[in-house]
Amino acid sequence: MNKIALAIHGGAGTILKSEMTVELEREYRAGLENSLKTGWEILQKNGSALDAVEAATVALENFPLFNAGRGAVFTHEGKHELDAAIMDGASGKAGAVAFVKNVVNPIKLARLVMERTEHILLGGDGANEFAREMKVEFAPDDYFFTEHRYQQLLQARETGKVQLDHSVEAASGEWRVAGEIQNPKSKIQNPIGTVGAAACDVFGNLAAATSTGGMTNKRFGRVGDTPIIGAGTYADNRTCAVSCTGHGEFFMKTLAAYDVAARMKYKNSSLIEAAQEVIENLRNIGGEGGLVAVDALGNVALPFNSDGMYRGSMTADGEMRIEIYR
Amino acid sequence: MNKIALAIHGGAGTILKSEMTVELEREYRAGLENSLKTGWEILQKNGSALDAVEAATVALENFPLFNAGRGAVFTHEGKHELDAAIMDGASGKAGAVAFVKNVVNPIKLARLVMERTEHILLGGDGANEFAREMKVEFAPDDYFFTEHRYQQLLQARETGKVQLDHSVEAASGEWRVAGEIQNPKSKIQNPIGTVGAAACDVFGNLAAATSTGGMTNKRFGRVGDTPIIGAGTYADNRTCAVSCTGHGEFFMKTLAAYDVAARMKYKNSSLIEAAQEVIENLRNIGGEGGLVAVDALGNVALPFNSDGMYRGSMTADGEMRIEIYR
Repeated sequence: MNKIALAIHGGAGTILKSEMTVELEREYRAGLENSLKTGWEILQKNGSALDAVEAATVALENFPLFNAGRGAVFTHEGKHELDAAIMDGASGKAGAVAFVKNVVNPIKLARLVMERTEHILLGGDGANEFAREMKVEFAPDDYFFTEHRYQQLLQARETGKVQLDHSVEAASGEWRVAGEIQNPKSKIQNPIGTVGAAACDVFGNLAAATSTGGMTNKRFGRVGDTPIIGAGTYADNRTCAVSCTGHGEFFMKTLAAYDVAARMKYKNSSLIEAAQEVIENLRNIGGEGGLVAVDALGNVALPFNSDGMYRGSMTADGEMRIEIYR
Repeated sequence: MNKIALAIHGGAGTILKSEMTVELEREYRAGLENSLKTGWEILQKNGSALDAVEAATVALENFPLFNAGRGAVFTHEGKHELDAAIMDGASGKAGAVAFVKNVVNPIKLARLVMERTEHILLGGDGANEFAREMKVEFAPDDYFFTEHRYQQLLQARETGKVQLDHSVEAASGEWRVAGEIQNPKSKIQNPIGTVGAAACDVFGNLAAATSTGGMTNKRFGRVGDTPIIGAGTYADNRTCAVSCTGHGEFFMKTLAAYDVAARMKYKNSSLIEAAQEVIENLRNIGGEGGLVAVDALGNVALPFNSDGMYRGSMTADGEMRIEIYR
């Protein structure tokens, strides 16, 4: 029997203790704890890493304070577009969806892409059509309405006037990433929150899952790192399982999730070394964020280069670790 | 001054000399030659690798026999959805578009994503909206109508009845990839054809570009490897520039393009070794296809594991090599 391990996150960014209330911090911790317990219970009963990361991520998607599933941020049009990916390190199979709408648990849909099609990534209306055929659970827009996210949209629309302006100049290089990497003025009001999990089960199988609501006020069908295998999500039994969070474009161009595995495979870095190197490499090019990773020996790594990352882990000692700040 | 180099491809798959006519082969060779000359001229005049791969890819997009731009295959709905990506190895910046419609040169749009936004990948209606704002060249559906692609759709609709059937069972695991990896019965009638280029300029800067029309009769907004940085397209001055073609999902889960670079970076493989290892790794897991790659010393590699790959290269000796078969 292998040592089981589970690591989860609820997003990285500017999270300062000085600006957090006791009540809000308690809520965040409860959300992380619920996810960890859900995934851990599966692993303890000799369940698969794949089932554990899916269940842990579903719990985070259903928790309204994170930017995924129910708590997803608003797009420019006042809608919610959800991305998710899952990868099974045992088979090397993966599934992902980009900008699906009204799907309660995008991570479940990503798993269906993996198991029920020959494809890996489905996007847009086509992905929603697939969701309908698969009879997954849908919810009306109301379900995804959260007051803090709506305030965030109003604020982004106000401060980010370029995003309302359809001129070519406005679109060029002036967009601001909101939701993930925060405006310093709106730290607590704009909860950070791509969510994800990485796990190792008793059989030594690894899996990773990530889910997000993307960027507040986003336009133009922007796809971030979350649904991109190798960028935001990756798993391979021979190396590690990784779920990332942060400024997506930096994770995409550095293939951050796969790069942890590549450093382990090709230069024999340990999980901890490889994960730390990837986050340092991101910092060197100006990319803010973090990741959670596990290997087949049951080790976990949760490095980040931002002020904070909502995160938690459980390893064979059975101790639950939940942290928010640096 | 560095040694300049350019490598291009027009797709890999089952291409048998016994089934090719003299006229058709002459046409394919002319298409490849035109692309090579276009890119090479830019490199010879001390132009950038980025400009060279873009121009070489535009030439391939405009050539109706390859599955990109004008010659794109038909989707299930009888439309054309185009994907493209470009990456600049000097800056590490990248741009990509997924399922854009009626855009004459998707690779130009990918470059605009790279240069005019903070994003990397735009998809669907949003990407088309961006294209309109950027005032790129559009063409009506007629422009993309090619008789051989239409026959391919009719054939796929007939033989691939599952793709017309909306039942859940039909969608699960029975889809066939057409267009890229060919039905043995329709080798010449169904020209293969994701296109792409990789180049090194006199400054030692590397760049890669890839463009595709995706799969015949495709549904559900499937996104393949082409617009995914690290899967179908990658460039980094410190290692290599790579453009891939083949059964996209295998390139996605192995991060084929980035994996060439990772093997060079982390275990000091040469370009030739790394590219060959990646294609062998694909073969081992059942993935058919090939890639073209260049490094900053002006070396080129064009490995593939299928029966053929439309391909061409020019290196410092000035000799133009164009090949189709193994």
